Amino acid sequence: MEAEIITIGDELLIGQVVDTNSAWLAEQLNLLGIKVHQITTISDSHEEIIKTLTEVSRHADIILLTGGLGPTKDDVTKLALCEFFDTYLVFNQDAYENVERLFRQRGFLMTEINRQQASIPAACTPIPNPEGTAPGMWFEKDGKIFISMPGVPFEMKSIFINQIAPKLAKVNNTLYILHKTILTHGVGESFLAQTIEAWEDNLPSNIKLAYLPQPGVVRLRLSAVGNNKSLLENQLNEEQVKLLHIIPDLVFGFDNDSMESVVGQLLRMSGKTLSTAESCTGGYIAHLITSIPGSSFYFKGSVVAYSNEVKVSQLNVARQAIIDNGAVSEVVVRQMAEGVRKNLQTDYSIAVTGVAGPDGGSEEKPVGTTWIAVATSEKVVSHRFHFGEHRDRNIRRAALAALNMLRQELK
Amino acid sequence: MEAEIITIGDELLIGQVVDTNSAWLAEQLNLLGIKVHQITTISDSHEEIIKTLTEVSRHADIILLTGGLGPTKDDVTKLALCEFFDTYLVFNQDAYENVERLFRQRGFLMTEINRQQASIPAACTPIPNPEGTAPGMWFEKDGKIFISMPGVPFEMKSIFINQIAPKLAKVNNTLYILHKTILTHGVGESFLAQTIEAWEDNLPSNIKLAYLPQPGVVRLRLSAVGNNKSLLENQLNEEQVKLLHIIPDLVFGFDNDSMESVVGQLLRMSGKTLSTAESCTGGYIAHLITSIPGSSFYFKGSVVAYSNEVKVSQLNVARQAIIDNGAVSEVVVRQMAEGVRKNLQTDYSIAVTGVAGPDGGSEEKPVGTTWIAVATSEKVVSHRFHFGEHRDRNIRRAALAALNMLRQELK
Repeated sequence: MEAEIITIGDELLIGQVVDTNSAWLAEQLNLLGIKVHQITTISDSHEEIIKTLTEVSRHADIILLTGGLGPTKDDVTKLALCEFFDTYLVFNQDAYENVERLFRQRGFLMTEINRQQASIPAACTPIPNPEGTAPGMWFEKDGKIFISMPGVPFEMKSIFINQIAPKLAKVNNTLYILHKTILTHGVGESFLAQTIEAWEDNLPSNIKLAYLPQPGVVRLRLSAVGNNKSLLENQLNEEQVKLLHIIPDLVFGFDNDSMESVVGQLLRMSGKTLSTAESCTGGYIAHLITSIPGSSFYFKGSVVAYSNEVKVSQLNVARQAIIDNGAVSEVVVRQMAEGVRKNLQTDYSIAVTGVAGPDGGSEEKPVGTTWIAVATSEKVVSHRFHFGEHRDRNIRRAALAALNMLRQELK
Repeated sequence: MEAEIITIGDELLIGQVVDTNSAWLAEQLNLLGIKVHQITTISDSHEEIIKTLTEVSRHADIILLTGGLGPTKDDVTKLALCEFFDTYLVFNQDAYENVERLFRQRGFLMTEINRQQASIPAACTPIPNPEGTAPGMWFEKDGKIFISMPGVPFEMKSIFINQIAPKLAKVNNTLYILHKTILTHGVGESFLAQTIEAWEDNLPSNIKLAYLPQPGVVRLRLSAVGNNKSLLENQLNEEQVKLLHIIPDLVFGFDNDSMESVVGQLLRMSGKTLSTAESCTGGYIAHLITSIPGSSFYFKGSVVAYSNEVKVSQLNVARQAIIDNGAVSEVVVRQMAEGVRKNLQTDYSIAVTGVAGPDGGSEEKPVGTTWIAVATSEKVVSHRFHFGEHRDRNIRRAALAALNMLRQELK
């Protein structure tokens, strides 16, 4: 079964908003064995919506639309749907009560435009949206399914997971597309490709490999297509085992893992605690760690020591060490790691100091130069890295490298 | 002049990667007066690429492609382009030397597949890519322009800004589309819409308004279309002034501003310094602040006090205050703000303590309950907020609310 995704909104076509809905929806549809053929982004225009619906419904079984259902005047999807399905708007009592309830809860006054959101095309099955004021809509026409959802990501996700996915699962039960993703850290895409070339060349014909590089991480995605779900699962597991024999040191996780979730799990299993001392990463490592629910079990806190005074006063770094070696140096990063571990009384600590850029670089220590240390009760491990010239990528890569050093200590 | 964007990659259609390139490109094209008609995302498939190129080139003057130029085997764009333009691959010495240079710089060994990246279609004008191994390509056919770029965002951006945009600016010099975005914090979309309804109804016919809500922020985007650039600029400025009279307290910035850049600018202008003490936000506020280049001028550091012990030992919070009131309380947040301001010796400080979720909520303090304080040399201001049920949105909204409280003190 094939699906088409249509995302509607001028904001997407002028680049003010990045479309994250499509990627999320595509992933969910894949889990249901529905392949996404194409994603099309169009403007808030009556004509474009009708034209695109007409076109994509030729070669897809399921058409999903997001966006254009908001309360404000730039939204035209509902009227375009009425024309496409040759129907008209009717007042829906349930939708109205939902809008009323939401406004009461939030202590806001209900406005006339919110009232209008309770009108929906007569030809559709409304899909309640407990998280927001615009209900979803399910249409069927000429054997095809059309689903319109709000564009606000958390409303769309809630509607899809709780109401649309179960309905779609009943419709589709033939072809499976399974994915397995292997997460690597430490080498670039082309070096990785050469290392695993023989394995890649011998993959079964129903399995495809893709390389997905990000700053600091290359994800390897295996996609298997077939009718027998458990056979596909076995195939993917087998290939994963083979791959792990080739690059055991580069793999840090699978599928929806992240470096911070993997490190978090290792800490939780070992019952150990962590603190961080961050200069150039500015709290980003602490943010990554605390983005994981339950991180309070192992993470006690961080000292973001952006200025040298704070390194001295809060982390016990010797003033003379900074004067002699500069803040971006092995001596200082080791003292930072030891200082935060002692002050916050944790089993492990991570420290980072570097030149994130765009300013602050020198010939000896150009932008991207970064020292990272991991301290335990027995030792301090430290490494020098050279990342690149771009501030945001340097921060991201330093954080990943630091978490990976800790991961290696925890293994 | 109208453009179409085609993004190529299976990873986009299974939802493993969010397409951020299109939004960025659309914004850049708009600045050049080129309107994006549609964005289409297709798979790494020879047939799909040719079919889509054929289709979109019917109604666009400029067609931009991203993706499918990487060194690994899942990339097919270059061969599809050869077929579409009826041409063949030739070895390009400049591209080859660029690949060689990059590998030398990074200390990596060059592989055979990297060598292949120096082959490009004979019919194109190659566009050098100093940041990566795959060059861009500029084709012309039947009066239309086709531009193929790598999918790695920073390579694509660098090529576009430095080489493609200047070429496109020469091609197009007729219609302008200008945007002005006003950033608001503190009220929801529909309340905002009602407040500014009269102003919206009286907008000139060549100006469109869109509401772009995100957790904690609603952006209002004005788009003006016309042939006279300075006239459009005047129109937008006029409307902005009118709007500021209606909602002066809700507006915190414009266009590419962010809450953290606005706060950073206010601090820099006033020569004041800042520290933060973060519990539930886990370093995210410090990360936002330090994502701004030059933030070391005003930001000294942060104490991420995730555990109660750290609140006591590093922020001088009274143990008894936590026992009596709980960590999520007005007393504690005020002591956190005072503690960090004193210990890190800054003019201002921000403190946040709350229940981010999914666990840790109670009847009295449900998930989303958050206390925020801002301390100055004269006083401490504190407020209680109730955000929602979702961890990541709670962290984001708490950080924005905290920075906004500081902004109001700085004004």
